[in-house]
Amino acid sequence: MLFEKIAVLTQDEQVQPELYVAVQGDSIAYVGRERPKGDFGRRYDGRGKLLMPGLVNAHSHAPMTLLRGYAEGLSLQAWLNERVFPFEARLTGQDVYFGSLLAYAEMLRFGVTASADMYFFGQDMAKAVLDSGMRANICLSVTCFDDRAFEELPVYEETLRLLESSQGAGNGRLRVDACLHAEYSSTPKVVAGVADFARRMGLRVHVHLSETRQEHEACKARWGLTPAAYLERQGLLENPGIAAHCVHCEEGDRQILAKHGVSAACNPVSNLKLASGILDAPAMLRAGVNLCLGTDGAASNNNLNLFEEMKDLALLSKGLLGDPCAVSAQQALRAATRGGALALGREDCGLIKAGLKADLAVLDAEKPWWSPRFDGPAQLCFGAQGSDVVLTMVDGRVLYEDGRWLTIDVEEARDQVQRRAERIAAELGA
Amino acid sequence: MLFEKIAVLTQDEQVQPELYVAVQGDSIAYVGRERPKGDFGRRYDGRGKLLMPGLVNAHSHAPMTLLRGYAEGLSLQAWLNERVFPFEARLTGQDVYFGSLLAYAEMLRFGVTASADMYFFGQDMAKAVLDSGMRANICLSVTCFDDRAFEELPVYEETLRLLESSQGAGNGRLRVDACLHAEYSSTPKVVAGVADFARRMGLRVHVHLSETRQEHEACKARWGLTPAAYLERQGLLENPGIAAHCVHCEEGDRQILAKHGVSAACNPVSNLKLASGILDAPAMLRAGVNLCLGTDGAASNNNLNLFEEMKDLALLSKGLLGDPCAVSAQQALRAATRGGALALGREDCGLIKAGLKADLAVLDAEKPWWSPRFDGPAQLCFGAQGSDVVLTMVDGRVLYEDGRWLTIDVEEARDQVQRRAERIAAELGA
Repeated sequence: MLFEKIAVLTQDEQVQPELYVAVQGDSIAYVGRERPKGDFGRRYDGRGKLLMPGLVNAHSHAPMTLLRGYAEGLSLQAWLNERVFPFEARLTGQDVYFGSLLAYAEMLRFGVTASADMYFFGQDMAKAVLDSGMRANICLSVTCFDDRAFEELPVYEETLRLLESSQGAGNGRLRVDACLHAEYSSTPKVVAGVADFARRMGLRVHVHLSETRQEHEACKARWGLTPAAYLERQGLLENPGIAAHCVHCEEGDRQILAKHGVSAACNPVSNLKLASGILDAPAMLRAGVNLCLGTDGAASNNNLNLFEEMKDLALLSKGLLGDPCAVSAQQALRAATRGGALALGREDCGLIKAGLKADLAVLDAEKPWWSPRFDGPAQLCFGAQGSDVVLTMVDGRVLYEDGRWLTIDVEEARDQVQRRAERIAAELGA
Repeated sequence: MLFEKIAVLTQDEQVQPELYVAVQGDSIAYVGRERPKGDFGRRYDGRGKLLMPGLVNAHSHAPMTLLRGYAEGLSLQAWLNERVFPFEARLTGQDVYFGSLLAYAEMLRFGVTASADMYFFGQDMAKAVLDSGMRANICLSVTCFDDRAFEELPVYEETLRLLESSQGAGNGRLRVDACLHAEYSSTPKVVAGVADFARRMGLRVHVHLSETRQEHEACKARWGLTPAAYLERQGLLENPGIAAHCVHCEEGDRQILAKHGVSAACNPVSNLKLASGILDAPAMLRAGVNLCLGTDGAASNNNLNLFEEMKDLALLSKGLLGDPCAVSAQQALRAATRGGALALGREDCGLIKAGLKADLAVLDAEKPWWSPRFDGPAQLCFGAQGSDVVLTMVDGRVLYEDGRWLTIDVEEARDQVQRRAERIAAELGA
């Protein structure tokens, strides 16, 4: 495929007009001002369009589309204990498959080409990733409230089987990460066990960190350490990966994340909705932490449109710190694209550059809200709509274009999710 | 027009499935479970759709689409003095006409049926309102930095002429309000003059209030009164209307607004972007102030999608006050619809109820992010996209449907805005 005369969000987060971008196989073969020689197949007229790296949803629980709107007006602990956990206890693998499929349809609609999903029923999550054509790091949520070691938990065996069946599947699109749900939902023995497992297997780790003040302070009371310091002591952070939320991280915590190359995934919408607060993005950036963005699950958002997270990240940083330069449009764009790719350990994604994977989104830049064109990055960060996306490509393959999904039967996924969610709600008498 | 079997956001901000809503002339003729007798012309299949009152943008400067993206990363005073004012000094009436037209195209695309616009070149603003079919309260910005009385300012004559030519035009769609730009940009004499004028002419007043801390504190230092108390003393608030921003209002200020029936227009995106802060919405509601929402101008947003303001109002209130119930989806929906209508003095708008004006938006509720359907109001407030709007009707007339604008040549408006904005930027050497 050859994108012709298209505006491009380049590596330095500037918008350059009228470039040529060629895709060959799963990768970007060429980016430049001149038409490249050779036949790249389909030619795409880029006039009035903008090409950007696909967005990366670096903290998500894709199957939670099933719980969208099920638990409103609650803070995190009540939301989890009274509504989410009882619902999740009744999920089947098929529920998780269709919930994920609907999530990926939505992400693709909004230009998201990769996500990091923590949940249960790994085989069903994996099938949804492979069927949809998405790129995803998936992991199985590890919790433990008793004396067992990690290797004694059913999730250990499940993770081993998932690694065996799925690691690197779909031309490397699918990866399996190690996981710890959180400090407050595990024991020191299990944290150390996951840490050791990840190190031995060479896995990245996905973990919730300092999401609420209560969690952060309770950890300090329990261990005399912040969650980040505690997880570091247990060896978990020797494996780079994703620390989700980081709302209540202190300066020392940011240093710990930076030191170990752990990325901080900001989830502004979910954190506000559950009244948890908001990550200090400028402090994270100053400390040298790789910043990325997540939607969290649909139950606390209620959509998976990462453009909203990008805008809110920049807005909140400006508004709450009283500094209109606190986080620039460029920094927010980077968090939504390259920052996310690096958080997933996908160094070959997240930039429009020859040799990198062809994970791309094309936007219609002729909508009324795109005029005049004074500042491309600001327009992308603050003005653009997720629905401006007219084409989403993952691994060189078009998965969404002009209202049509090429790999997902969206009507089927929607109806399945509706029926399955109603079934569980009825079982719970809700 | 008869909407058949359509889900409806009702007066109590609940979503009721499968209702019939009939429109006759400029008004809603019927809302109910049974198919009404009589011929209402076109029948609209409402299956999979949701009907809600049109949204009301209660604080906007429509022509500022011309400045979209022109001044990024600045706080309010620098943004105004260094970038906005020099640009605005070079605007012509035709610039303002096309800027407004593009703004109304964008608002209609996102289901906004009415707006309150403060700017210059009233005749050109009025023409854009009438040509587009929008409902709008427009007013001419009053500022004064010398010793003249209101009646000695050119804007006084302009306002008189605008009232004469345009008050109530377009079947009452167009109204002219009185205006004071703000306390800091005027003198006590002019405030009293505008107050007296509004009282004599029976006009509502549109004013900026306590947008930044600097403005709020400087007013207290200058007069020993908060901006709200100062404007009250000068008689301005005896005329109900719109106080825009109210970010730094104190409890006494909220009591003043409530006492005089002045509405508080929250502009969450603009207030965050210019690092001004955020209005305390729960406190406003507790004080009995009518709360409404605005996008402010496109230069500080950068779009006019009021769905973003609605979501951010609820999110910010929850997240910053640490209370997930601080502002409910229902309260945010009300602020975006009925609250806005009341702020504009449009008691006959903002609800889906027989006898009221037919200002309506239809949303496609079959997009992936609308499943499952557990909680209609939450889905509308947190999940829905402005781009889900498939039909916008003002005063009984369809103005936007399925990608087409029926009264505005959007391509022409976009090209005009592009050329005119570039002209001014070139003049300024930007």
